[in-house]
Amino acid sequence: MRPELLARVLSLLPAPGRRPELDGYAAMLRDYPQRGGKGIRSELVLASARAHGLNPDAPTWDGALWLAAGVEMFQNWVLIHDDIEDDSEDRRGRPALHRLHGVPLAINAGDGLHAYMWEAVWKSGVPGGMDAFLGMIHRTAEGQHLDLCWVEDSRWDLTPDDYLDMVRLKTSYYTVVVPLALGALAAGAAPHAAFEPAGRALGAAFQIRDDVLNLTGDPQKYGKEIGGDLLEGKRTLITLHWLEHAPAEQREAFLAQMRLPRPDKDPQVIADVHRWLLDSGSVAHAQAVAAQEAALGLRLLEQALQGAANPDAARELIGAMRALATRDA
Amino acid sequence: MRPELLARVLSLLPAPGRRPELDGYAAMLRDYPQRGGKGIRSELVLASARAHGLNPDAPTWDGALWLAAGVEMFQNWVLIHDDIEDDSEDRRGRPALHRLHGVPLAINAGDGLHAYMWEAVWKSGVPGGMDAFLGMIHRTAEGQHLDLCWVEDSRWDLTPDDYLDMVRLKTSYYTVVVPLALGALAAGAAPHAAFEPAGRALGAAFQIRDDVLNLTGDPQKYGKEIGGDLLEGKRTLITLHWLEHAPAEQREAFLAQMRLPRPDKDPQVIADVHRWLLDSGSVAHAQAVAAQEAALGLRLLEQALQGAANPDAARELIGAMRALATRDA
Repeated sequence: MRPELLARVLSLLPAPGRRPELDGYAAMLRDYPQRGGKGIRSELVLASARAHGLNPDAPTWDGALWLAAGVEMFQNWVLIHDDIEDDSEDRRGRPALHRLHGVPLAINAGDGLHAYMWEAVWKSGVPGGMDAFLGMIHRTAEGQHLDLCWVEDSRWDLTPDDYLDMVRLKTSYYTVVVPLALGALAAGAAPHAAFEPAGRALGAAFQIRDDVLNLTGDPQKYGKEIGGDLLEGKRTLITLHWLEHAPAEQREAFLAQMRLPRPDKDPQVIADVHRWLLDSGSVAHAQAVAAQEAALGLRLLEQALQGAANPDAARELIGAMRALATRDA
Repeated sequence: MRPELLARVLSLLPAPGRRPELDGYAAMLRDYPQRGGKGIRSELVLASARAHGLNPDAPTWDGALWLAAGVEMFQNWVLIHDDIEDDSEDRRGRPALHRLHGVPLAINAGDGLHAYMWEAVWKSGVPGGMDAFLGMIHRTAEGQHLDLCWVEDSRWDLTPDDYLDMVRLKTSYYTVVVPLALGALAAGAAPHAAFEPAGRALGAAFQIRDDVLNLTGDPQKYGKEIGGDLLEGKRTLITLHWLEHAPAEQREAFLAQMRLPRPDKDPQVIADVHRWLLDSGSVAHAQAVAAQEAALGLRLLEQALQGAANPDAARELIGAMRALATRDA
């Protein structure tokens, strides 16, 4: 995120100086925000605020900055918990927080950061901000529940529509729908009704491309382990499409690995599966679906921003959304 | 909690009817609140509101009820995460949530309930309510960090003062300090400055007695497994005092068990330790400290409530606090 937002985030978090153990707590809360995430979502909040006519020199720009900081804090506490839920190894090129400090302390640090996020929302003073954050957390947690309960229940009898239901909840609200709405609210405008369908499509495009990058990405740029989704047993459009078309023996080998907990998975078989997926048409299929969703979302967004208070800023916002939904790093 | 509060809590939570998996999510959020906690803390909020002159027939009583519901929601999401952090087996006579659904889904359900808690606080419309809840979560998470990092780092080189530092943060704010303050705020009064020292002492008394009950309680009344703190390796005033006085071979046997993860602990040795603790003077010592803290806290609270808007209700509040700080079930 941009340095002025990181400074805002850190200004809310506890300072060291009471007991050594509490200094450790403060350091855990600061860790993920300081690892240098791209700040995609906070930039969307600010771009949307500008498109709705709010200028960075206006006194109420401060409210937009607090909401943008809150969105970053949201992502960071969610990532702490998400890394535990998926038992991820790395986050932004370093070990995940629970791998450094154990699961109990990491759950607690995520809860602490969650509460500080509300402090940022509260400080923004933007009417409607609280409700927008509540909706964002509710939808994200519902999507997360779908994703996790399929893993928990070893379910692979899922359709591409099930996957889209899941990612629209898990990814679209906090990545697109709510950042767009927060920008409008910060500018004193009512969020356009089309932000929801636009953001649901654009968020799905973003997540599908993230799933593709998880298989094909450059480890340096991607920041997570390549193939990690396979080790974590995540359902993706790629795997669900591939399962419909794969040779029976590959399918069986895949499902047998997916029944095993991560530490028991065979790295050799996982590497085979990884290659089968890359060699299949399923990656290209997923990219085609992502392109479709991106096109739909961009069309809706362009319509919604016709007559925007700041047309130049609206064009920039649409450009940023296009880059996000069609990114390849 | 009282039925009208439970109804309020449930009215905020998601209803079933979208997808079977999301019905499962809704059921997880409703589970702990419906297990019938005593509602001690929400009753304190309401008793404090009455003592500060707010009557149940006043239109603003509704704000007190939402804050009281929020306090119950706080306790429930914290318990979901706490049970994972301690790997507890039971909660209120049934298996802990993560033992029913696995750790990932339970972390996520706790996060969801946390967000719904803010909805209750927000609905209360009580000025100062947000800040009081923020402070409550921050202090509780700090105390929880102390407790958990001592377990994580296998630290037993702790003094009774370390223990008191920890429980004042972990227990006192959400059990006493903040409920007292919320009642004042709901009645439109500024919380008395002495609520903090009073509540810190009373909360410590409450927690020490909880630790005693964990060793000596009636399983039917207590709702958690007797001796569970030993299996979870929790630091208590009882164990820290006992370590200072125990015969070397008992001390060694205890520390050897505490170095083991819960599933590797020897139930026979844990049963021996349990008996050594009961036979030592350390339980009586802890009860004496609890009585001291309770007396200090009650004295401070009585002073703070001199000249309360509703003297009868203030006396009731003090009586409830006395029962809480000296409870034996």
